[in-house]
Amino acid sequence: METISTIRSHGGVQGVYCHASSSTGTDMTFSVFVPPHAVGAVLPVVWYLSGLTCTHANVTDKGEYRRTCAELGLIFVAPDTSPRGDSVPDDPAGAYDLGLGAGFYVDATHAPWASHYRMWRYVMDELPGLIARAFPADMKRQGITGHSMGGHGALTAGLRYPERFRSVSAFAPIAAPSQVPWGEKALGAYLGADRAAWRGHDAVALIEDGARVPALLVDVGDADPFLDSQLRPELLQDACAAAAIDLTLRIQPGYDHSYHFVSTFMADHLRWHAERLQ
Amino acid sequence: METISTIRSHGGVQGVYCHASSSTGTDMTFSVFVPPHAVGAVLPVVWYLSGLTCTHANVTDKGEYRRTCAELGLIFVAPDTSPRGDSVPDDPAGAYDLGLGAGFYVDATHAPWASHYRMWRYVMDELPGLIARAFPADMKRQGITGHSMGGHGALTAGLRYPERFRSVSAFAPIAAPSQVPWGEKALGAYLGADRAAWRGHDAVALIEDGARVPALLVDVGDADPFLDSQLRPELLQDACAAAAIDLTLRIQPGYDHSYHFVSTFMADHLRWHAERLQ
Repeated sequence: METISTIRSHGGVQGVYCHASSSTGTDMTFSVFVPPHAVGAVLPVVWYLSGLTCTHANVTDKGEYRRTCAELGLIFVAPDTSPRGDSVPDDPAGAYDLGLGAGFYVDATHAPWASHYRMWRYVMDELPGLIARAFPADMKRQGITGHSMGGHGALTAGLRYPERFRSVSAFAPIAAPSQVPWGEKALGAYLGADRAAWRGHDAVALIEDGARVPALLVDVGDADPFLDSQLRPELLQDACAAAAIDLTLRIQPGYDHSYHFVSTFMADHLRWHAERLQ
Repeated sequence: METISTIRSHGGVQGVYCHASSSTGTDMTFSVFVPPHAVGAVLPVVWYLSGLTCTHANVTDKGEYRRTCAELGLIFVAPDTSPRGDSVPDDPAGAYDLGLGAGFYVDATHAPWASHYRMWRYVMDELPGLIARAFPADMKRQGITGHSMGGHGALTAGLRYPERFRSVSAFAPIAAPSQVPWGEKALGAYLGADRAAWRGHDAVALIEDGARVPALLVDVGDADPFLDSQLRPELLQDACAAAAIDLTLRIQPGYDHSYHFVSTFMADHLRWHAERLQ
């Protein structure tokens, strides 16, 4: 692991790191904020999965998480959203919603994606191992959140690994990717036309198929231009109601899909995670 | 005034605006955050002047001021740092510390700068008039702060207009530009070789020449690479001591010159302003 930068921030250290990933076959960059802490202490970890077009840098620059993480003693990890590099295929049309910046937190099984687009194993297996080795992280206390495509990733991760992730939340998640254009395009490309293979990467389908978590916090802005076409929180609400999952769904008046929305409610989410991790 | 964008953020509205400036003879872009407030209320205003290479966007993206401004009911205004446009001269060598992004908050008197580089009158006269007309601002309650070159601008503004600015603070300011390379280069170019003309744009010189404010808050990081060569807070400390100005100078261990430093201490500064403006 190579340290790209470390900067004192809010009493802790904001770092950016790079390593050669065996999952993706590429170098991968990620950021970690370690709050101030006592020597020898280990701290709970909140994972933040980013949305379409983002790298680790968007939330690191604009997420406004450090002050609250410092208050609550949370490590904050932000991975990239896809493999990158000259050898990595991208959408031939250059679309923002497939290929680079659009890994959708799955392990692709279909060409040309399968050789590098293995974001699920990267975020679920490889990077956690690195975090556990290189940072003062208590891996028995992990929570996960994310924005948009990353909200999708956080919900599916939380539903598939409820014992690992003791807290799960999302900002404007793609709640039912199998039923919306972004998800149909990406899951169809990465996983193939058989929709049965998509159900393990669709929060609503996972719940329908029996996955359970104790509670979810989800915020969505009512001025989000993707609300009705891509996010569909009502489908998550229906699935949680049918499954008796305690969903707190907050429709935030006037908020859009930007980091202004994310940063406004970041402190609420971090507190929600800290309550469950401490 | 043209609205470039308005976005709901932290309960208020973050806007970016553009207008044709008579001071600079160019279009000028600035950002304003208006916190949540009662209908008809007028709110105190904190000006934030940015540093070398910045536009309004750096602090708007990375300053992490909105949450605290929303708590305290402060309007936050961030102007640009120079005129911009095809007609505006830049440093022929393309240096970052002269010309575009480096207006130094003076009215240039020497060619080729004098035709557009009139940032002092822009920030001190023209833009306040626009803010007073277009936003729910109580112009009897203004404070000013800034970072680096903008800290220099905030200190000189506060010292020259103590009745206007009831609170003055700075992040890593160029405290004595006449005595450091950044300032000597810029003031020499914009104002000419006669150093007597520089004294009205040098916080230490202004204090030596009799300018007074009740109190100043200044933060500087001890890992700031410009601390000893360009910022020289000890010169401000000496001048304030000789003038019985109540300077709170905090040397922050481990912090550099970045927006990680600014955002870490932003809430402290905003509280310090709010105490004096409310």
